[in-house]
Amino acid sequence: MGTGDAATRAEKRARLAHPIETGALVGARWSPYGFDPRPLPAAELRSLLEAARWSPSSYNEQPWRLVAARREDGEPFERLLGCLVEFNQSWARHASALVLGVVVRRFAGRDADNPAAEHDLGLATAHLMLEATARGLSTHAMIGIDAGRARAAFAIPDGFDPLTAIAIGYAGTPGDQPDKLRDRDAAPRDRKPLAEFVFGGEWGRPAPCLED
Amino acid sequence: MGTGDAATRAEKRARLAHPIETGALVGARWSPYGFDPRPLPAAELRSLLEAARWSPSSYNEQPWRLVAARREDGEPFERLLGCLVEFNQSWARHASALVLGVVVRRFAGRDADNPAAEHDLGLATAHLMLEATARGLSTHAMIGIDAGRARAAFAIPDGFDPLTAIAIGYAGTPGDQPDKLRDRDAAPRDRKPLAEFVFGGEWGRPAPCLED
Repeated sequence: MGTGDAATRAEKRARLAHPIETGALVGARWSPYGFDPRPLPAAELRSLLEAARWSPSSYNEQPWRLVAARREDGEPFERLLGCLVEFNQSWARHASALVLGVVVRRFAGRDADNPAAEHDLGLATAHLMLEATARGLSTHAMIGIDAGRARAAFAIPDGFDPLTAIAIGYAGTPGDQPDKLRDRDAAPRDRKPLAEFVFGGEWGRPAPCLED
Repeated sequence: MGTGDAATRAEKRARLAHPIETGALVGARWSPYGFDPRPLPAAELRSLLEAARWSPSSYNEQPWRLVAARREDGEPFERLLGCLVEFNQSWARHASALVLGVVVRRFAGRDADNPAAEHDLGLATAHLMLEATARGLSTHAMIGIDAGRARAAFAIPDGFDPLTAIAIGYAGTPGDQPDKLRDRDAAPRDRKPLAEFVFGGEWGRPAPCLED
């Protein structure tokens, strides 16, 4: 376990086109498939959750609920693992903790859907991930869960919708890691250039601020 | 403009229940209604967009498109401002830049909706916001836009759905700021305790990791 981590991490640094101040977080963060199943101290997990807690949200609704289990919790960890689609179970079982991301579909104070609910879970998840990076931990978020199974497994009431899971732990290379996943973990990170997704006055045309 | 910023910023620090390493970002970030309409250098805006660019996304789809306009862009800035609901226009007009957040509803490579699209726009937006905080800039994201007006204003094709807007600039206190918004900007930030939203094996019961 853990061999080659340093090389992998160096190769996974974002190849920045523009300078960022958050390079140690945004530039260093990546989503491994390989985890080394070391115990994660509860205090570490609390700090990640605390960072998520201070995320902004529309009307400060905080439209998220999380189900968190560490490997040493035993049965709840296995139960949460069982809510992932099969492929995600295959690698996430090495994570030190799993978090289920659940959106609160309706506003607390009025009879209407909250159109920001999924978006705001994303905001909170990014906070959690960057706090993890700051602590030398790795995260891998998944949309690949079985929402029905999660609802049944944790008796999640109507109006609360399981949407994501987050694997949290220590990046590593499990001895039984399939070559395909090892290759993915070793591959450089890749993103579209800004000019392909930041437009200005005309849809599809790069924003003027990209060229000033 | 800008009087009282220092006091406000100090009061707005998150009152942490658990230590976080990202305190200078997550702990310092807040969403002002008051902005001082100073010009935002294009290079600063590019750095914010670059941080968003390196956000994770499901299948690395990067299911976001952004429309970005700075105040000095003139007409496109006014056009983007006009896509906000009226209340948001009233304060966001003082921002130095506006960004429209658009989700890509379908997967690029297959004929299916991307269930992570809105969530992943949230991830990218959090990156942008924290990069802004690192640079002494403020952001305020809104779900309160008129999506139909945005689609018409920027000829946004089917399959791309305007969801959010982000005001970016310098926190301040405009001379004409309504008392109600001034009070909101001066109020401490408030969040639910972890025990109210982080559950363990049983829905509604705090996770064991909160108490270890």
